[in-house]
Amino acid sequence: MRMSAGIEWAVHCCVVLAGSDGPVTAARLAELHDVSRTSLAKHLQALAGAGIVEATEGRSGGYVLTRPPSNVTLWDVVQAVEGRGSVFRCTEIRQRGPLAASAESCTRACAVARAMHDAEQAYRAALGGTTIADLVDQVEADSGPGALATVTAWLRRTDDPDASAGY
Amino acid sequence: MRMSAGIEWAVHCCVVLAGSDGPVTAARLAELHDVSRTSLAKHLQALAGAGIVEATEGRSGGYVLTRPPSNVTLWDVVQAVEGRGSVFRCTEIRQRGPLAASAESCTRACAVARAMHDAEQAYRAALGGTTIADLVDQVEADSGPGALATVTAWLRRTDDPDASAGY
Repeated sequence: MRMSAGIEWAVHCCVVLAGSDGPVTAARLAELHDVSRTSLAKHLQALAGAGIVEATEGRSGGYVLTRPPSNVTLWDVVQAVEGRGSVFRCTEIRQRGPLAASAESCTRACAVARAMHDAEQAYRAALGGTTIADLVDQVEADSGPGALATVTAWLRRTDDPDASAGY
Repeated sequence: MRMSAGIEWAVHCCVVLAGSDGPVTAARLAELHDVSRTSLAKHLQALAGAGIVEATEGRSGGYVLTRPPSNVTLWDVVQAVEGRGSVFRCTEIRQRGPLAASAESCTRACAVARAMHDAEQAYRAALGGTTIADLVDQVEADSGPGALATVTAWLRRTDDPDASAGY
């Protein structure tokens, strides 16, 4: 029960794109984060498939957020990368074996599945209550107001030996 | 990001053991739920490793809960079967790449990891708020007060052609 490493990458990309003043290529995002370009491209495509980012074409093309960062939640990103299935798998074992309950008596989810789904709802609600805009604010609070501006400046250039402030 | 199927099996076994008046073998629990005996034995061993059940020896030996079902939460069972690691993997990508933050400036978890961990806390709290005793009560409410007694009666026998009420 672990998320793919791609979640961390995808969220950080959204934070960077929220601060960016133009499209950013997958290659540049991969270079910034020192991660596999191929793997990151796959996660960016997942974000695009979910309508969170879109790829613009042309010489200065790249990825941009499709909506304000205050309208993109962590839950949106997790769903995009991990898929929409629930964490708990209910195989209705109460309907199996020598004392199997009849299908007719199982129209309501069993108590185990209900409790698991309630916990997942709490998880989703917490992730849904944090937006990319919130994370941008927190990164700035943690690293100083210039942190994302430094990243944006670096993203604009192909080489930037003076850049030093990380986030 | 999915739980193993073993979670469903392990929780149902705990519910059955909570209603049982004596030790139950892994073979009998597997037969009751019509699941793989080998796989179920592995999950029961995980529960034993976490101190939730214990194996008693001898001719009438088998598994019993080690403590009252009101003292075993769903979170205890999930941790026993899935392990104790967190769902989100933070690889500190803020410390990588050309704008890497220094290790000295990263003594606090980054905003992304903090938000993910807060959501996990909400999940854990929800699972930790439901006990096996709660599930027993809900199964009885759903299936009638005799449901678990029928299971217990079946577990005592090697053959029970009259048993019919499932849960």
